[in-house]
Amino acid sequence: MGVSDVKYLMKLRYVGTDFCGSQIQPNVRTVQGVLNDAFEHLFGVRCKVTSCSRTDSGVHAHAASLTVELPDGTTPIPADKLPLAVSPLLPADVSVFDACAVNDDFHVRHDVKEKEYVYLVHNGTVRDPFLCHRVWFYPTPIGDEGFARIQAALPHFIGTHDFAAFMAQGSPVATTVRTLTSFEVTRNGETVRFAVRGDGFLYNMVRILVGTLIEVAAGRIMPEDIPDVIKSCDRRRAGMTAPPEGLYLNRVFYD
Amino acid sequence: MGVSDVKYLMKLRYVGTDFCGSQIQPNVRTVQGVLNDAFEHLFGVRCKVTSCSRTDSGVHAHAASLTVELPDGTTPIPADKLPLAVSPLLPADVSVFDACAVNDDFHVRHDVKEKEYVYLVHNGTVRDPFLCHRVWFYPTPIGDEGFARIQAALPHFIGTHDFAAFMAQGSPVATTVRTLTSFEVTRNGETVRFAVRGDGFLYNMVRILVGTLIEVAAGRIMPEDIPDVIKSCDRRRAGMTAPPEGLYLNRVFYD
Repeated sequence: MGVSDVKYLMKLRYVGTDFCGSQIQPNVRTVQGVLNDAFEHLFGVRCKVTSCSRTDSGVHAHAASLTVELPDGTTPIPADKLPLAVSPLLPADVSVFDACAVNDDFHVRHDVKEKEYVYLVHNGTVRDPFLCHRVWFYPTPIGDEGFARIQAALPHFIGTHDFAAFMAQGSPVATTVRTLTSFEVTRNGETVRFAVRGDGFLYNMVRILVGTLIEVAAGRIMPEDIPDVIKSCDRRRAGMTAPPEGLYLNRVFYD
Repeated sequence: MGVSDVKYLMKLRYVGTDFCGSQIQPNVRTVQGVLNDAFEHLFGVRCKVTSCSRTDSGVHAHAASLTVELPDGTTPIPADKLPLAVSPLLPADVSVFDACAVNDDFHVRHDVKEKEYVYLVHNGTVRDPFLCHRVWFYPTPIGDEGFARIQAALPHFIGTHDFAAFMAQGSPVATTVRTLTSFEVTRNGETVRFAVRGDGFLYNMVRILVGTLIEVAAGRIMPEDIPDVIKSCDRRRAGMTAPPEGLYLNRVFYD
């Protein structure tokens, strides 16, 4: 059994609504907990499941990634058969839709080059039942003017900055410097879609970026003030934290 | 208070998953039951709520219609304010998103000219958690050939026919003749969308039409056999009944 047979990289999709986040915790339902159980069932032994990132309660993933490492002596399954094999062991709100074998030295979190998050806002008058728990319902009309203000603010976020003003308090990290490589906001009917890509994100960073842009749309923060807000490194200068239900981990990029 | 103040026509959207159908029944959760309660709350008196059609348990509506009639002496609410006024009284899986005043002689069911149903099939390898309860997950690949067979079958359904072969048993009606004015099937990635429009539909008719076309795709029924299947008026000649979760009442047309 070669090394490449015992470590799998998989793509993962989940509706975050009924999970207490992705990271395993005792006595609550988590994505990692559900995956641990499913792979233990499948391989008949507890495997090492590692996720590319942690998401909060209510946050979704279109394509997160995870690795599964089999203990020595475990009979492997061909990687292309894995999604179908594990599917009946997973609940309806999680699916594994792609798998390949990787080298033992690949690390699903440390080797991430970039991640893309998408945030969906339903800027309508009345709640849409089909979007419940899947978007932030924000009924104050953004309008063309507000949308133009958002567009004017976006370029200020691109590049390498200290994003300390866009981090939830009580989340210690070595550095609050991150690089955003793209940030696009588009409209389709009543839905506003924020797509942001970068080398890493601080705790609640995407939700605070979106909350800030919504306040830019409302005229409470001006687009031209964004550089100062960033420089301040002061959480109070940035906007509100958008709620979790609109946030999707959309893609994870490796070399 | 004019006649037009006391009868409202509204558009209604609901996720059918957690309802035992649309029609009111004792001791179970129904769309009509939820609406009755919400409008009684809003107007302080039991109103007459009538729906354009009945949908089964698990079937959804993008834009159903209903009328609400206020008893004499009830203080009306301007029609344009109704969606927002009733919104906080409705559960998250139902919304009223449009309302206008109509004449007393308008009937929300009898005056329907045409209805359009949409049916969504997820023809993928692995279940998508975001589509759970919202599509029929059908993993057998339909492929280009199967899709071409569906397209070849569609024209045979258009026009006025006795659709007795496409009706669930035990559903007495005066006539099983119906007119279909359009039937289109499109693909977008792994999703196949059936859109059928006609002057009326028999019990389970759309689900049997879709089930039949899926069997046409699989080659178990040939496109050129459809006229014979229709003429037979024999339920056993048509295909299976597609499950409820992929079905949406999409639009209702009046003069």
